[in-house]
Amino acid sequence: MSTHSSPEDFGNQLDTVFDRFGHLCVGIDPHPYLFDRWGYDDSSRTLSEFSLRVLDACVGKVGLIKPQVAFFERWGSAGYAALERLIHRARESNILVIADAKRGDIGSTMQAYAQTWLSSGSPLESDAMTASPYLGLGSLEDTLRIAEAQSKGVFVLAATSNPEAREVQSAIIEHGDNTGSTLARSVMRGVVAFNQASGKIVGGVVIGATVDLRDFAVDADEFAGMPILAPGFGFQGADPKDARRLFGPLAQRLIVTETRSILEAGPDGINETIIRRAGLVAEALR
Amino acid sequence: MSTHSSPEDFGNQLDTVFDRFGHLCVGIDPHPYLFDRWGYDDSSRTLSEFSLRVLDACVGKVGLIKPQVAFFERWGSAGYAALERLIHRARESNILVIADAKRGDIGSTMQAYAQTWLSSGSPLESDAMTASPYLGLGSLEDTLRIAEAQSKGVFVLAATSNPEAREVQSAIIEHGDNTGSTLARSVMRGVVAFNQASGKIVGGVVIGATVDLRDFAVDADEFAGMPILAPGFGFQGADPKDARRLFGPLAQRLIVTETRSILEAGPDGINETIIRRAGLVAEALR
Repeated sequence: MSTHSSPEDFGNQLDTVFDRFGHLCVGIDPHPYLFDRWGYDDSSRTLSEFSLRVLDACVGKVGLIKPQVAFFERWGSAGYAALERLIHRARESNILVIADAKRGDIGSTMQAYAQTWLSSGSPLESDAMTASPYLGLGSLEDTLRIAEAQSKGVFVLAATSNPEAREVQSAIIEHGDNTGSTLARSVMRGVVAFNQASGKIVGGVVIGATVDLRDFAVDADEFAGMPILAPGFGFQGADPKDARRLFGPLAQRLIVTETRSILEAGPDGINETIIRRAGLVAEALR
Repeated sequence: MSTHSSPEDFGNQLDTVFDRFGHLCVGIDPHPYLFDRWGYDDSSRTLSEFSLRVLDACVGKVGLIKPQVAFFERWGSAGYAALERLIHRARESNILVIADAKRGDIGSTMQAYAQTWLSSGSPLESDAMTASPYLGLGSLEDTLRIAEAQSKGVFVLAATSNPEAREVQSAIIEHGDNTGSTLARSVMRGVVAFNQASGKIVGGVVIGATVDLRDFAVDADEFAGMPILAPGFGFQGADPKDARRLFGPLAQRLIVTETRSILEAGPDGINETIIRRAGLVAEALR
């Protein structure tokens, strides 16, 4: 039986994957510069071949992939057909799929996005999605509820490592229950409050691996055990060996995402690279 | 010659549309509850038929449509094929298309989104897109540059009318050049600064029609003439008659978006409804 038809909550599915494969998540960003390195031209057929070859290299070695939706959307409906094939084949292979879509909208529009990425039977049904809170964390409440009902996960953007983000994510709230808190902290508090009320682990947050949480007035102890999706390992500078030091009490359900450090290995090196990187990450967070 | 192959900047394209058709933009949100009202079942074929029928009713009466991407994405690749047909046919009919996608990401990922929605020859090429600034307005700089080079527009989320948004969008920046400003105001300042440096009108912002800008410490006089995409007219409560009073110096390039008030008219009433609403909006902002 697939992990995905299980009634277990998303946190349990994550824990099962961590036990079996460790904490590595392979980012699948089909960037045109990589096609060249892989000996492909830049076309929607390449997109599908490339992403399925990366997936094949993941099967049996890692338990999580994170396709970057933008690089599929670039090819319109043909790109989405390639994404559907990738997601479907990954989930059939017992790999959890985190759709990196960063969707954020209100009301019935956000519900439509949640149905797209999280509802059973949707062509793009994944195991979790990323979401953006600029319209207020409350605008993502329905998304968390849909995820809860479907045993799926939602990772809300909290503190990212790009320098231009700090101005926004460290801004101080002046109205409502979170007055005095930074945006990043209020997102984390809201997600944890949802999980506590639910009794299930449904929500997590996105925190860049090279982020210093003190810049966002976040005390990691307050959020121990919540799922963290962390891009920025490998090519972008963070070393998985430092994961426990960097994330402290957040290391328990840390998803260590590597993308270029794996994809740049090319078709001949990717199998070996995934084995090596997965081993390093498993060792670091054992 | 189509408006879209013109080298004119986006602001000029908008002004041409305003002169000819007034300021109404028809939101195309193919929500399942509307299919029922239109006598359709809920399928991807319906999605295409519904959206093209709405478009047909717009041709010659309004100059702007705003398809809500979420309701197409819900059907995966089949939904995107329907969206491609809608966008293509609208642009062939000299209607400007604002893709309401609210995308927001960093670096080459955000570039891929900008190429998707704004680049000449992309399957989803539109005339403008909406974007989300949670990752910092700086993360949208490349998007504005791509828009500038392609004579397209970008509407960045600033102040929206859903109650849960205020906490985020009125938060106060504590670091960098915009220290002391609300997020909404810093977004508006950043977009205006881009336009000024460019010498073209490339960027605008999304402001809900029922928003009181004082809640976001925004003085409209500072931003006179910038393009404003304003959902919330019609069904959601704002009356186009009040547009000039509500938006003051921002009324010059105000895009009055109505969705349900038009779509709920059904197949028999939509032609007449669009004529009536377009007339009201033209009258209010003459």
